[in-house]
Formats: sequence, structure tokens, C-alpha cells
Amino acid sequence: MKKHNYSAGPSILPQEVFEKASQAVLNFNNSGLSILEISHRSKDFVAVMDEARSLALELLGLQGKGYQALFLQGGASTAFLMAPYNLLKENGKAAYLDSGTWATAAIKEAKLFGETVVVGSSKDDNYNHIPKGYEIPADADYFHCTSNNTIFGTQMKEFPATNIPVVCDMSSDIFSRELDFSKFDLIYAGAQKNMGPAGTTLVVVKEEILGKNGRTIPSMLDYTKHIKAESMYNTPSVFAVYVSLLTLQWIKEKGGIAAVEKLNNAKAELLYAEIDRNPLFKGAAAVEDRSNMNVTFLLTNPDHTATFDALWKEAGISGLPGHRSVGGYRASIYNAMPIESVQVLVDVMKALETKV
Amino acid sequence: MKKHNYSAGPSILPQEVFEKASQAVLNFNNSGLSILEISHRSKDFVAVMDEARSLALELLGLQGKGYQALFLQGGASTAFLMAPYNLLKENGKAAYLDSGTWATAAIKEAKLFGETVVVGSSKDDNYNHIPKGYEIPADADYFHCTSNNTIFGTQMKEFPATNIPVVCDMSSDIFSRELDFSKFDLIYAGAQKNMGPAGTTLVVVKEEILGKNGRTIPSMLDYTKHIKAESMYNTPSVFAVYVSLLTLQWIKEKGGIAAVEKLNNAKAELLYAEIDRNPLFKGAAAVEDRSNMNVTFLLTNPDHTATFDALWKEAGISGLPGHRSVGGYRASIYNAMPIESVQVLVDVMKALETKV
Repeated sequence: MKKHNYSAGPSILPQEVFEKASQAVLNFNNSGLSILEISHRSKDFVAVMDEARSLALELLGLQGKGYQALFLQGGASTAFLMAPYNLLKENGKAAYLDSGTWATAAIKEAKLFGETVVVGSSKDDNYNHIPKGYEIPADADYFHCTSNNTIFGTQMKEFPATNIPVVCDMSSDIFSRELDFSKFDLIYAGAQKNMGPAGTTLVVVKEEILGKNGRTIPSMLDYTKHIKAESMYNTPSVFAVYVSLLTLQWIKEKGGIAAVEKLNNAKAELLYAEIDRNPLFKGAAAVEDRSNMNVTFLLTNPDHTATFDALWKEAGISGLPGHRSVGGYRASIYNAMPIESVQVLVDVMKALETKV
Repeated sequence: MKKHNYSAGPSILPQEVFEKASQAVLNFNNSGLSILEISHRSKDFVAVMDEARSLALELLGLQGKGYQALFLQGGASTAFLMAPYNLLKENGKAAYLDSGTWATAAIKEAKLFGETVVVGSSKDDNYNHIPKGYEIPADADYFHCTSNNTIFGTQMKEFPATNIPVVCDMSSDIFSRELDFSKFDLIYAGAQKNMGPAGTTLVVVKEEILGKNGRTIPSMLDYTKHIKAESMYNTPSVFAVYVSLLTLQWIKEKGGIAAVEKLNNAKAELLYAEIDRNPLFKGAAAVEDRSNMNVTFLLTNPDHTATFDALWKEAGISGLPGHRSVGGYRASIYNAMPIESVQVLVDVMKALETKV
């Protein structure tokens, strides 16, 4: 039976990526060796890393604009501390937008390094919207925001204009929509949503912002050292980088971010339309900030929970329960989720009307 | 044609591990989902993580002795900075043994955190032996050593007796030989030699040594936080942990470390015997410190290089060139390398005698 994987991350990737990855575990590039046993310094893997770095910049429209792409380890959680370590001056300050759980975690780490100003927060509303109308101090070393809040199902539709460097955690919506990425100075994203399996983190950084904060940075936390080593300062997460490359190639073959975004919009419209039409459901996030990646919704009558849960499980859907901070349901409809799977969920939601 | 993979890391793993891993990329545990798309919080993956942590301690004989095993990201290079961050007091000092390139890299990071005493070094002899006859200051916060030096082909056969915590980088020989592991307080090892693919790092730590140095540690660098979160403080490197579990299960099925060590000794004896017998070759490392994992050797006459290189390539051998710091050749004969493959190399070395 076909499975419809709505997990928030790690999450669905294209079927053809799974097939190529599975084959490479047995025999990579027809070398007679597994991708798991080849040297990261081998010609074949250096080519993988180079293409992955270059293709990431190409898809984001950042080639030749002073940016470097890195595939590091440690997830966005490590980037939470690397951002201040690399950018926050000893007696400087950082400005953060508090739009959810992961933003809060990033703020906690920044505070270990210096003054951290929270310019806006939607915490009092359990992060059901993106904070707006805030001001960014012009003398801050950087402004940090989270483009998509996986847990709460909100997404920044606009980004503030500012003259200071902009740092953005794009873990859950990178490569899903067109943005002017040149407005960002440091972007990071754990791979395990739209880009690949868990185990690698994409970092895209404008080189000119680095090396200016006067700190002595441990080697593995220093973006400059990773750039100099062409993302091979130490042994990278070989397989995760390879699968990320396969996924980036798939995005390019689909027509790039523009084409993928069109499909993502159609999937989100289909699902939100049903949430708004069907009196048994209601959306969890403010309408204007609804995420096109993580669709959070609730039953209007919790008594229907057992009936609804049985229905979607019967339909082969998995990973639908919402995060405990929000409750209800969360349908993560990342790039690789086919619209046919979204239709299966919508049909189940319609079916509930005939059952209750 | 069968390949004989002598790479120093990432390196050979058991064929049955490749086959199971390849299958799991298509369909993990018969779930209809890829191991690459399942949630790290799913019951199936939590079971993988729990078994991997528990089996690592079991194989090392450390269960019920106050130790915790963690599967983190960032490689040994990240452990180089985590060790002092977690163990070195603000005005304390650390003692390091300088036995090679990776020890030197660990020392460099420790120096960022405080006084770092190098108690012994074989640098002046290009690390062709393990330093001996050194004294460890009794007032140091910990002593750090590297059990096996991948690049130079040396291995510590004995470890010093000391009353201070012992930290050991066992990246390239963990699970390859029996030791009294309870003499160590913190062991770390990048997976990509004897344990799994690149992308995860095993940390084995005696809990009682943590939380005592008075530093505020960023979350991702704090061993205590990772222990509290049962190695899931953030999304782990799911696939790399799974393949590590498969490899640990393979070791257990073989009869545990004792059985694997017996085979490792036989492989090393076979190869070193040929190096010592064949006048065309000489070992690179001091005889008493020869590594049973990385066998470094040179041609006595460099003019034979092209002939020898052609011979081993024809025999299906890959990954044999030595590291640039030593030159010559390096045969990495980790756990998964069959003795039949070592025999192929020995036969090629013998064949060279008939060609020159």
C-alpha cells in the first residue's frame, strides 16, 4: 500500500532519490565500491561536494555574488551557536525575532555570547503568527529570523529591510519558494526537510561579513576555516551530502525553485481550502502567515479524534499528528510530496463529514 | 572484479552491512518508508538509537559502570574542542600526548581554552613512534591521547597509569582490540573506520567527570545535555547511526571484540611479515609501535614505484597510497577487511620481486 509521509522532518524525499541512493550504497558511480566506503578525498566524492556546493548557489541565484555554500554537520542547532560566534562582536549586540521554538533556541545560544535584543515575539499567542511592526536596532551586529516555523505552521512572507547583516534559519522552507536570497548574508538549513536526509546542514554565507568580530573561534565553529577547506575541513557527512546533491539535481530537473514553488502553492491551496470549507476543521495559524510547508489544523470538535485518526491511518497516511505545543494535526507538504497525496488527505477530511 | 578497499577512512565495512543499508534506503523495517524519511522520534528509530548506544557499551564491557554512549555529529574534530569545553577548568590545565597530526589538532583546540601541557611528543621523528617515558602532571584536569595514529601507522600498546581522567581519541582503532576500557573516562571516535559511515561520532563518557569545570557550555557542545536527551538533543544523523548499529551487530555476531581482534592480529602479522621478509619493502613505523589498523610501508628503492603501483591496481586494490606526510603506502586493514584481501596484497608484494 502506498504511504503518504507527512512527517515534519526527517521527511519525504523524491522516490528517484531513494532509488539512486540505495544503488550507491551497493556500488557508487560504477566504481565497485559503496558510497559508504569511499574516501572523502577521492576524485568522485570531491566532485559530489563541488557540485552540491555550486548547485545550491545556482538554485538560490547566488552564484558570482560573493557567497559560499558549505555542507557542515551538527544541524541548525549548531548554527545557533556558530552565528553569534562568527558575527557577534565581544561588546556588540544581536537582534533576534522570536517567532517560535527554534527561534527561542537560537536566542538562548546567542545570549551566551553577548547582548541579544528580542525585537519582536509572538510567544504570548503561542506563536500562532509572525511578529510584525518591530524595529531593528541599526547598531546591532546582525538580525536573525526563522523563515518558517515548522512546529506552529507559520511562515514569513516578507522580510524586513535593514542595513545590518541578515541571518536566517531556513531549515524548513529552503528551496521551496523564490526569494531574493541576496538580501540575506547568512542562511542555514538542516538538510532533513527539502534537501536531503538528516546529517548535513547547508550554510550559505556572504564571505565579506566573516572575520570581523574579533573573536578567536574554535576551528570547527569557524565558517572561514570551512570555506578555506572547501567544506572539507574534516571528513564531511559523505552520504548525506550525496543524497542532498541528488535532491538538488531533482529540483533543477523539475525547473528549479520557481517550478517547485508553483506546485507547493497548489498543494497548500488545496489543503487550506478544505480546512476553511470543512466545518469539522479549523486552521491553527493566522491566515496571513500560513506556512506552505507545514499546515497546522485542529478538529473543531475533539470528540472526532478517534474517528479521524482511524480514517487517515487506513488511507496510508503517516506522520500527521501535530507537535505537542500545538496539538491537532500538522501536514508537512515539502517539495517531494506529490499533490496526489495531498488529495488523499483532503478526501479523508471530506469523508469524516459522512462519518460523524 | 572484486575490489580490495584499503582506504584509511571512510573505509571498508562488511558487505552484509552495505546490503542491509541499501535495502533500508528503499524500505526500512518493512514500514513502506525509507530510513531517510522517517522521523527520528519514531518508535522504530528510537529503538535503533537505544540499541546502538547500549550495544556500544556492551561490546566495550562498560555497561553498568557509570558510562553513557552518545552518537553525535561533527567528527573527532568537534570532540577536540568539546573535550576541553567540558573538562578543562577556567584556570586549570590539560595534559596532552603529541603522537601525530590528529593529536596536534586536538592540542591546538585545547589551547583556546586554557593551559595545555604537551607531556611527550615524537614530532622530531615525524611521529614514527609513540612517545614514551613521559610524566603526567597530577594536578592536570585530564590527560588526552590518541590510541592509533592513522597517518603514521603507530598504535599505543600500553596506556599510562594516572589518577586524573583519561581522554582518548580512538577514531581509528575502536572495536578492533580488547582493552580495559574502564581505565578511560572519555572516549570518542569518528564512525568512519571500524564503526560505520562518515557522519556520526561515538562518544563514551563516564558521567561523574562531567559538569565540574564551571564553564557555561553552548548546548550542542555540552555532553551533559546530550546525555539528558538520550543522544537526541537535536536531529541525529539517522542513517549513519543506523549503519553503525548494523556494524556493531556484525561485530557481536562475529564473537565480539575478542574474536575480531584475533583476526586483526592475523591480518597484521601476515602483512608485517611480508614487509620484513621482502627486501623491496621496509616498514615506516617503529616496530614496537606498529599499528594493527594502518600498516605504513615504503619501497626500499623508489624507482620501483610505477611497477608496484601498476601491480596492485591490476589486482583490484584501491586506497593504498600513503598520506603525504609519510609517503609510500598505507594499508588500512580495519575490522571488515577480509584476510583474503590482505593475502592479495602480500601476493602482489611477492610478485614485485619477480618483476624488478
